[in-house]
Order: sequence, then C-alpha cells, then structure tokens
Amino acid sequence: MEDVQNRQAEVAMPIDSVGVRNIQLPISVSQREGGPQHSVATVELGVELPAAFKGTHMSRFVEALENWNEDLSYTSVKRLLEDILQRLQARKAHIAFSFPFFLRRPSPVSASSGLQGYACRLTGELTGGEDAGRTGGKPSFLLELNAPVMTVCPCSKAISDEGAHSQRADVRIALRLKGFNWLEEFIEIAGRAASSPTYPLLKREDEKFVTEQAFANPRFVEDVVRNVAEQLAAHPQVTWFRVEVESYESIHAHNAYARIERHCAR
Amino acid sequence: MEDVQNRQAEVAMPIDSVGVRNIQLPISVSQREGGPQHSVATVELGVELPAAFKGTHMSRFVEALENWNEDLSYTSVKRLLEDILQRLQARKAHIAFSFPFFLRRPSPVSASSGLQGYACRLTGELTGGEDAGRTGGKPSFLLELNAPVMTVCPCSKAISDEGAHSQRADVRIALRLKGFNWLEEFIEIAGRAASSPTYPLLKREDEKFVTEQAFANPRFVEDVVRNVAEQLAAHPQVTWFRVEVESYESIHAHNAYARIERHCAR
Amino acid sequence: MEDVQNRQAEVAMPIDSVGVRNIQLPISVSQREGGPQHSVATVELGVELPAAFKGTHMSRFVEALENWNEDLSYTSVKRLLEDILQRLQARKAHIAFSFPFFLRRPSPVSASSGLQGYACRLTGELTGGEDAGRTGGKPSFLLELNAPVMTVCPCSKAISDEGAHSQRADVRIALRLKGFNWLEEFIEIAGRAASSPTYPLLKREDEKFVTEQAFANPRFVEDVVRNVAEQLAAHPQVTWFRVEVESYESIHAHNAYARIERHCAR
Amino acid sequence: MEDVQNRQAEVAMPIDSVGVRNIQLPISVSQREGGPQHSVATVELGVELPAAFKGTHMSRFVEALENWNEDLSYTSVKRLLEDILQRLQARKAHIAFSFPFFLRRPSPVSASSGLQGYACRLTGELTGGEDAGRTGGKPSFLLELNAPVMTVCPCSKAISDEGAHSQRADVRIALRLKGFNWLEEFIEIAGRAASSPTYPLLKREDEKFVTEQAFANPRFVEDVVRNVAEQLAAHPQVTWFRVEVESYESIHAHNAYARIERHCAR
Repeated sequence: MEDVQNRQAEVAMPIDSVGVRNIQLPISVSQREGGPQHSVATVELGVELPAAFKGTHMSRFVEALENWNEDLSYTSVKRLLEDILQRLQARKAHIAFSFPFFLRRPSPVSASSGLQGYACRLTGELTGGEDAGRTGGKPSFLLELNAPVMTVCPCSKAISDEGAHSQRADVRIALRLKGFNWLEEFIEIAGRAASSPTYPLLKREDEKFVTEQAFANPRFVEDVVRNVAEQLAAHPQVTWFRVEVESYESIHAHNAYARIERHCAR
Repeated sequence: MEDVQNRQAEVAMPIDSVGVRNIQLPISVSQREGGPQHSVATVELGVELPAAFKGTHMSRFVEALENWNEDLSYTSVKRLLEDILQRLQARKAHIAFSFPFFLRRPSPVSASSGLQGYACRLTGELTGGEDAGRTGGKPSFLLELNAPVMTVCPCSKAISDEGAHSQRADVRIALRLKGFNWLEEFIEIAGRAASSPTYPLLKREDEKFVTEQAFANPRFVEDVVRNVAEQLAAHPQVTWFRVEVESYESIHAHNAYARIERHCAR
Repeated sequence: MEDVQNRQAEVAMPIDSVGVRNIQLPISVSQREGGPQHSVATVELGVELPAAFKGTHMSRFVEALENWNEDLSYTSVKRLLEDILQRLQARKAHIAFSFPFFLRRPSPVSASSGLQGYACRLTGELTGGEDAGRTGGKPSFLLELNAPVMTVCPCSKAISDEGAHSQRADVRIALRLKGFNWLEEFIEIAGRAASSPTYPLLKREDEKFVTEQAFANPRFVEDVVRNVAEQLAAHPQVTWFRVEVESYESIHAHNAYARIERHCAR
Repeated sequence: MEDVQNRQAEVAMPIDSVGVRNIQLPISVSQREGGPQHSVATVELGVELPAAFKGTHMSRFVEALENWNEDLSYTSVKRLLEDILQRLQARKAHIAFSFPFFLRRPSPVSASSGLQGYACRLTGELTGGEDAGRTGGKPSFLLELNAPVMTVCPCSKAISDEGAHSQRADVRIALRLKGFNWLEEFIEIAGRAASSPTYPLLKREDEKFVTEQAFANPRFVEDVVRNVAEQLAAHPQVTWFRVEVESYESIHAHNAYARIERHCAR
C-alpha cells in the first residue's frame, strides 16, 4: 500500500506542529509524600514537519504512548519525547499531559482530611540530533496548575457596616523551572497568597476558623496575583512565570481577573 | 436520485425524536419594557419518526427555520412547530431555543444601570392532526432560565466572630405555564429568594448596600430553593416547576446544591 | 457553636435532593478481564431533606466519601448509600460517579492495541428504613455511557458517483438493569450498531479495513439508534433504556441526532 | 467612603493586565453585504496597573461598556479603548469581544441558502499618552475566527477499494492586519483550503455535489493548514498569522491537528 504521507507536499511549507490531541489514558504521578498517585490524563503529542513531506504518521504517536506506560516524571517524559523523535524521524517533538493532581489537605482546626483535585498540565519539548544546538538534547518544560482559593473583598469590607463579599477564585500558575519541583509547593504558594485556601472537608470549628482568617486577610485579585508573583520571583528554581487570578465575584455575574508574567534572571 | 430516507427501516421501531441540533441563529425576543431585544439562539428541531420509515429529511428542518425568521413568542413558535409537522409529514414535532436574555438592571442606590445576560431555553412540543387528541393542536412549552445570585452562609455567620463566607450561586428554574409570562418576572423571583441578586454595575455606595443587605439575609442553598419554590407554587400561571440552586462555595472547590420539583394543581 | 442547619425551616417544604457536587477523586473500576482499573471520578452526593429542617450537613457527605475509598461496584456503592443515609439521618440518598472507563481495543487486522476512554456515569439511589417499602432496602441504579463511533451516510453513498460523507458520532446509552453487567458489553453493542466502531490505533492495513467495512455498512443516526435499541430490548438484564445518537455531520456545522427510550417488560 | 483601591500596594509590582471578564451583551457587526448584523458578545476589558496602586476600579470598565453601545468596528473599538484609558487613568488598555458572526451561504447546486455561525474574537490593545511611542496612539488588533470544514483522508482513499473516511474539522485562523478586512474573506479562505466547506442547508443534488467534490479533493490536516497558510502569506494585508486545523477523525475518538505560525514581511 502506498505511503501517501511520504508524497511530496503540494505547498512546500514547514509545519510548526502536527500530531494528535484528546487522547485519554490512566497515568501515575509522583507526589512529595507516599508513592505515586493514580490519575487520568488527556494527552497531545506532536512533531515539526519539514516542508518536503505531505504528512506525518499519526498512528506512530499512539504507538509511542502505548509503549510509554510510565509515571509522569522528568525522566519518563524525556524518554517519550526521544521515542517520538525517533519513530517520526522528526527534528522537534512536543507533548502535553493535562490531569488532575490530588492533594490530601487537613482542615486547619480539627485536622479532618480530604482529597482535593487540582487541574495541572505538563508540556515538554525536545529538539533532537544535530539541530539540538544550545539545548544539548535536554527537553524544556512548562508546568501549569490551577488552585481554587477564597478571596474577601477589601473594599467591600472597608465601606460596609457589616460583612464583605467573598467568593471562589482560581489561581492559575504557569512555570518554567531549572530543575525538579513538587507540585505541592506551588499549590501552597497559591493558598497563602489568597484570603484563604479552599478545603475539601471543614467541620464547624474549621469553618469558623477559615471564615475569620479570610476576613482578617481581605484581598483583591490584584493582591493575590502580586502575592503569588512575589513568591515565584523569589523562588530559586523559577526562570519564568505567568500568574492569573480570576475571581467569580459574588455580587456580579461577571469575573474579575489580574495577570502578571515575568522572566526571572538567575 | 433515490430518496433513501423513504426506504423501509431495517429495524421497524418508532423513533421518539430525530432531527438537528447545534444550529446557531440571530433571534429577537419580546421583553416587558421596550420593543423586542436582539439575541442569538442555539436551536434543536426534531420529529417523531414512525417505525416504517428508514430516515427523516434533515434539510427540511433547516428550511423551516430559514422560513421562520421571527420573534421568539408563543405564536411564532406554534407556527414553526406546525410548519415542521407539515414539511416532515410528522405526528409530533419539538423545538428548543437556547439563548441569553438581557435585562437592564439599575443598581440599588445610585441607580447606575447595566445589562445582565441570563441563559434561557424555550422548549416546545406539538402533536398534530388526528393524533392531537387531548392537546387539541395546542403546543406545550417548557421555559428554563438561569439567574446568578449571591448567597451568604447562615452557619458561617452564626458561628464566626466576624464575617461569613459568601459566593455566587446559580438559580435554575424550569417551568410549565398556563399562559404567557414575562421572563423578567422569574428573574426577579430568583433574586428575591437569595441573599442578594447579582448586578452588572455597582458603584461604591451600591456595593456597601448590597454587602450589608446580603449579610442581613444569610441563606443556605436550601433556603433559596425553598424561597423560589414557595413563590412558584403560589404563582397562578405555573402548573409545574423544578428549581435547582447550585452555589460555588468560596471555602471549598466543590459546590452545594438543592432541588425541588412540584406539580401545582390549579 | 449553634447547629444552624437544625433550626426550623422558614419555608416548611421538603427538598427532593440536597448535597454536594463536583468533587473529584481517584477511583478503581472492575473490568471484565484483568484486575480493577484506575480512573478518576467527579462525584455528586445528596439526600432528601424533610420539611422541618433548615439545612443538611454538607461536610458529612465528604466524610462519607473519605471513609468509602473502594472499587466502584454494586456492593461498594450500596455501602456508600447506606452510610450516607445513616450519617445524614435521611430517608433517601443518591450518588452519581462520572468517570472515564478505559478499554484496550485491538485493531481489526494487525491487532495493534491501544486504550480508549469512554465517558461513563453510575447513579444510585437508596430509600432506607421503614420507608424502603417496595424496594426492600435495595438500591436502584442507572448506568450511562458514551461510545464514539463512525457513521457513513447511506443517502450520500446512494446518490454520489464516488464516496459518501462519514463522520464521528456519539452513541449515548442509559440503562436500568436487573443485575450486574460489564460495561464492555454495551460498548460493543454501540460499535456493532454503527458503520464502524472507532479505534485508538490503526495501522495502514487496519485503516483500509475500517474504511471498507464502514462503506459497506452505511448508517443514518436513525439506523444506529434502532440497532442499539433492538439489541438492548432483547437483552435479558435491561429493564429500561434510552439511546441517543448524535453525529457531527462532516458536510454541516450542525449535528444530526435520534433518540429512543423504552421500558422492557421482563 | 474610603477609596481602598487607591491605597498603596503591599507588593509594589506592576500588573500586566487587570479587569473584568465574561460580560455578555448584544452587539452589531459590520458585514460585506447588507447593513450590520445583530450578534451577542462575551467581553473582556483590562488595563495595566502601575506598581504603586493597590487596585483598579472594576466598575469603570462596565461604565465604559455601557457608554459604548456601538457597532463592532475599528473606529468604535478604538473609541472604547481610549475611553477606558481615560476612565481608568491607565497607560495601556485592552479589550476582547468573542461573538458568533453569521454568514448566509447558498448551497452549490440548488442555491438554497441558510445562515451559518462562525465563532470569532476581536482583541484590541492601545497604549496611551506619552507612552504611546512607536504606536502613535494607534490600537493594535488581533482577529480570530473558527470555520468548520470537511476533510476527506487522502491515505484512506488511496489504500481502500471503496470510500475514504471523512470528518468535520475546525480551521482556526488568528490574524494581525495592516488595515480593515471583511471577516467573510477569511471564512472563504478556510473553506477553499479544505476538501469542502460546510453548508447550513443542502438538498439532495447539493449533497451529491459536495460529496463528489470533497472526494475529488482529499486533504490531510497538514494539507489544509498549508493551503490556508499559503493564502494568508500571500494576502497583502496580513502581517502575522497563526492557523490551526483540528479534525475530529471519524475512525478515532481522538483528533488530528496541525499548526503554522508566521510573520509576513510587508
């Protein structure tokens, strides 16, 4: 049977990225305490396609993934990227795994614990062979996570005789790192930056504590985004970050947001 | 060319509903004050298919919609249903229009006004010809709307030295009505039932008022769902309703919900 | 601290269902071959609330889930429902787990295998104590699954000199069953009913086979929905079903759908 | 009442963008033929916030939008950006309008016409006052649109004795332009690049034509992305573009995609 993909391209233009998307599979993810945890990922895999070739061989991405079957870690993703480079005879490969990461969180007073899921994404890119150049065959990674938090409005608190509106907000962190870091660390940074983290399980004494603590720490989205940015800018491993905070304002049907993006000279 | 749809079905089983879905088009919608407003709807159209026929003629649904081109109202939807019955030679037809409905809402103190969009859906069904029987050729309608509101937690308020967690919540109302009613009326019912309605535009004096009013009226999702249900049960036009309240708890990453469904003897 | 939830309701109306929603957690699910598989579920838990009580105790749902920690199976879900009834002192409890179920599917010629994820949902309901009545303390279950398939249009094939438009379609099955059944069985029913099942991994010889097989079996959404319905109606365990097929028509930006719902006397 | 937003920031860090998101409102949009069309937009508005200020005044964004109330056009968006700069006393403002754009499309043989909606987004940015520098007070725009098309697989066609799998695909185009251009032009570019455009309404003779034409023009996502890129690279007004094609493969449950991004020296 003809290998149609190997025909010459009608339009001789290189393609930045071509591949497959929306593949689901069970994975395991390393965590700071205890062994790896089980999760489920939605995966995208792609390569650069030179101008000369009509098409890539999509089934080889799925074969690479089938052959992978490992913990999501720096080493295993590097191996997957190398495998894709070779199977697809490509110069550049990239992968993205989107998955919930689960963290056991004790409540602040009764220490009742529950699991909370945080939406994460790990994107990796590798340039191979002679083209590797400066990167020397080392993949680059982008780590993203979403941490739901609570914000109490400082303006509402200052001007009202009683109360202040509060709401759920999402802290979205994107990171480039010099080396390995636990996801847990950045979830904690997000929680500290807000009026309060969110908790899976709160008994009455915990709810009293969380309410009072949040009201003692009113924060705009502007405050939260700066608090996260300040911690990331000071983090020895972070070389670039983007933080976005989006709060689902309880007094409005629309959302407030703030975003900071920075390169960190190290 | 052969009319493949008119072939005999291989499996002689009637189909409850067959048609098209996810068609977008601009519509206009009647409102209580001022002329009709412009909106955009996502539309589903369908008919019952007898056991004998292999398929329906999907293009006729789009033709009916093309030919319709009217304000969304009881009369115009009745006409569309009748047109579908005839074009598709069907015994039973149904339509569903999902669209945002816009309401100009003044703020409570400064009367600064803004538009707020409420997700709505109108579903209609018509049985035609000799089969009409009890319905006598009159369509039945289901009206659904989503109104975002604010809830302040009564428990958090009662047990905390200061503050109480609040959050955005959605009030979702589904209705069967004896006659015509303005959407505006049910949006107001939802707002009154909660700690506060949400507003598109609040200046400082408004934000103070809304915060204080909401804190003076703490409400669980259970309170809100009952408050809405009580008003709908007492409404002379409502013959059936389902209310669901879902609150995006600010102290948790998960949601609280409550649901009541009732037939109203009239 | 006051138990605000135990206050008397201002509006004395029973609530059909009140609880928590959108909790994510890792689960394991039994499969026909091999041990249980790992997946991730989004969970809803609820109870009926009598007219007299102001609120339910939301944290107890999360405690029940924390205490559960088992394989998703008839027995374990029954235990979770009983635990919720007791913790919440409720008359009626319900749960819903939404999760991807993974099936290893070999390709039809080269037998190259890959994992495919199918969106599933298991809903369970239990009425307890003296109110159990007819149900005798046995939970009722609703099983839902979504199987992506391929449809080739019979009309397009019959009238065109060459080719026929094909597209991806979703077969959505909802079931009430007399006893335990493997999910795998219903995924296969969906695949057989369409022009072809979808596959995670197809090499060239497989792609040729799948294309030719699909073109030899052109099917409208009407055909697919009837083929599934016929198999479910004949299934000894199925007491009720609803099948919906939605095809993402490749010649249109809108979708075609068909739906059949039936009680099966057994 | 205190202006809490004007307090000094605790963390003196400039914020790249802060504002509101997820505001819905009716708009009108210019079209090539006929007067402006009615649509509905979801809007984001934001400004840069200097390091010294604790917060921005979120209500002023909504006021600017309330005061705007115009056709979506180069001139009107420029006016909105200038208004935001002034109301918020900001150095840099940005807006984004996401909306469906409707195009009346005649079918290729019977010329039966129907409306098709295309998801679009217009993003604008303006740097004001003395900081305007090189931009000289002229806003920069990014135009994005999604056009659903049909692809027939060249490999499947070449290797199969009969047929070839086809599917719906999305062509997503992002553009920076030197001047004004009709949206219609880029929708047509997307349609020509694929095996066939999609149509809202096709009678039997049209369906035959579209099927045969599509089968005469089999295209991989790689072909489509290059065909679009070639046309955009040759377009005298385009200074930068990104094209992505994502096809909902009918033989798989996952998608194939390809992406090209280029600066065009003019």
